[in-house]
Amino acid sequence: MQGTPETTTGTAAYTPTDRTIPTRSAQKASYDRDLVHAILDEGYVCHLGFVRDGAPVVLPTLYGRVGETLYVHGSTGSRPLRMTGQADPGLPVCLTVTHVDGLVLARSAFHHSINYRSVVVHGIAYDVTDPQEKLTALDALVDHVVPGRAADSRPANKKELAATAVIRLDLNEVSAKTRTGGVNEEPEDLTLPHWAGVLPLRKGYDAPLPEADLAPGIELPDYLAVP
Amino acid sequence: MQGTPETTTGTAAYTPTDRTIPTRSAQKASYDRDLVHAILDEGYVCHLGFVRDGAPVVLPTLYGRVGETLYVHGSTGSRPLRMTGQADPGLPVCLTVTHVDGLVLARSAFHHSINYRSVVVHGIAYDVTDPQEKLTALDALVDHVVPGRAADSRPANKKELAATAVIRLDLNEVSAKTRTGGVNEEPEDLTLPHWAGVLPLRKGYDAPLPEADLAPGIELPDYLAVP
Repeated sequence: MQGTPETTTGTAAYTPTDRTIPTRSAQKASYDRDLVHAILDEGYVCHLGFVRDGAPVVLPTLYGRVGETLYVHGSTGSRPLRMTGQADPGLPVCLTVTHVDGLVLARSAFHHSINYRSVVVHGIAYDVTDPQEKLTALDALVDHVVPGRAADSRPANKKELAATAVIRLDLNEVSAKTRTGGVNEEPEDLTLPHWAGVLPLRKGYDAPLPEADLAPGIELPDYLAVP
Repeated sequence: MQGTPETTTGTAAYTPTDRTIPTRSAQKASYDRDLVHAILDEGYVCHLGFVRDGAPVVLPTLYGRVGETLYVHGSTGSRPLRMTGQADPGLPVCLTVTHVDGLVLARSAFHHSINYRSVVVHGIAYDVTDPQEKLTALDALVDHVVPGRAADSRPANKKELAATAVIRLDLNEVSAKTRTGGVNEEPEDLTLPHWAGVLPLRKGYDAPLPEADLAPGIELPDYLAVP
């Protein structure tokens, strides 16, 4: 969407629906496409919800994004992927990605909170049957974990492709929710003898741990250098 | 459960059910109570799934544990809490907690993975109506974020208690799933010219950020000292 200015009021924002308008803390909600994409792109796992025998199921799983489509993959034998392949027209899902950025400690128990950024996507998941779309999705899944990695690994062969199912979920009914900043407090609590503030959670990764049996001469690639 | 040795084969383990026996990677599943408790206690947010109008909804939320019961709280106006209060006998939910511990980069795209620990809890959520249980639950929620914090903050007053709903979910139908260790690889891929290994994700928090208006003389409490 480069070149298309996106704002929460412009046509490029996601359209709020009954499901994406929160019943509370509405000021924390956003439908901005850039914000949604940024939150999605920073996550490693999503939590995928679906209904089985009338009850909810929530499973963590890797995902990738290509434009306005999310992809989830798994063994052809895994439950949500098998259910999607058998559902007509598809499987109703809710896919949620959450980053916990900080712990917010208030003087009052009531105002304890967390700083976070989350995206909730509602929609119908469809089995990806087009071979080219499947390859694109699998590259996106690998590049989602580490950008640039798909080009620096052996692509899936026929047997691996046949063992892997991919489902797609388009970004239509989407909202982001965020909390940032410091502590909210009742004015009369400001003089209480309790420490208050934010504990920022550590991000990123520590020094990479190479396998012991790397081929001779293999150095750590630049895209894995710890910032 | 101190003093009661717990193993995956002993009576103290959770009993597997159709919903908690995975259709694949069964060797990664565990029903060990200590492991489940440890994974739950380390998390900050869970992802709570429920069904609304036949479709799944997955929302991130704080939680706390007291023995074999999990508690989730929120505004009395929030959707899942209101739905629980109105449901008879309660609201079917699935509560999932996931830690991403490392990114596993294989020489083949297919064997890319993550090291993780997750717990999935299936059950019925009930509105907590007993005032004493509600207070205990709220303390557990605060202490879950930072152990020891509930005693070092102002407890909720009547107005705050009235505005807060708490739901309970007992740990009965529960499983943990974990992946640890290095890279799995096809033998013929070991000579490929790609770096392979694990990127361990950073844990914990960075230096606390105190509010600017702390009461005079308030020092950082010991329980917040960065290890």
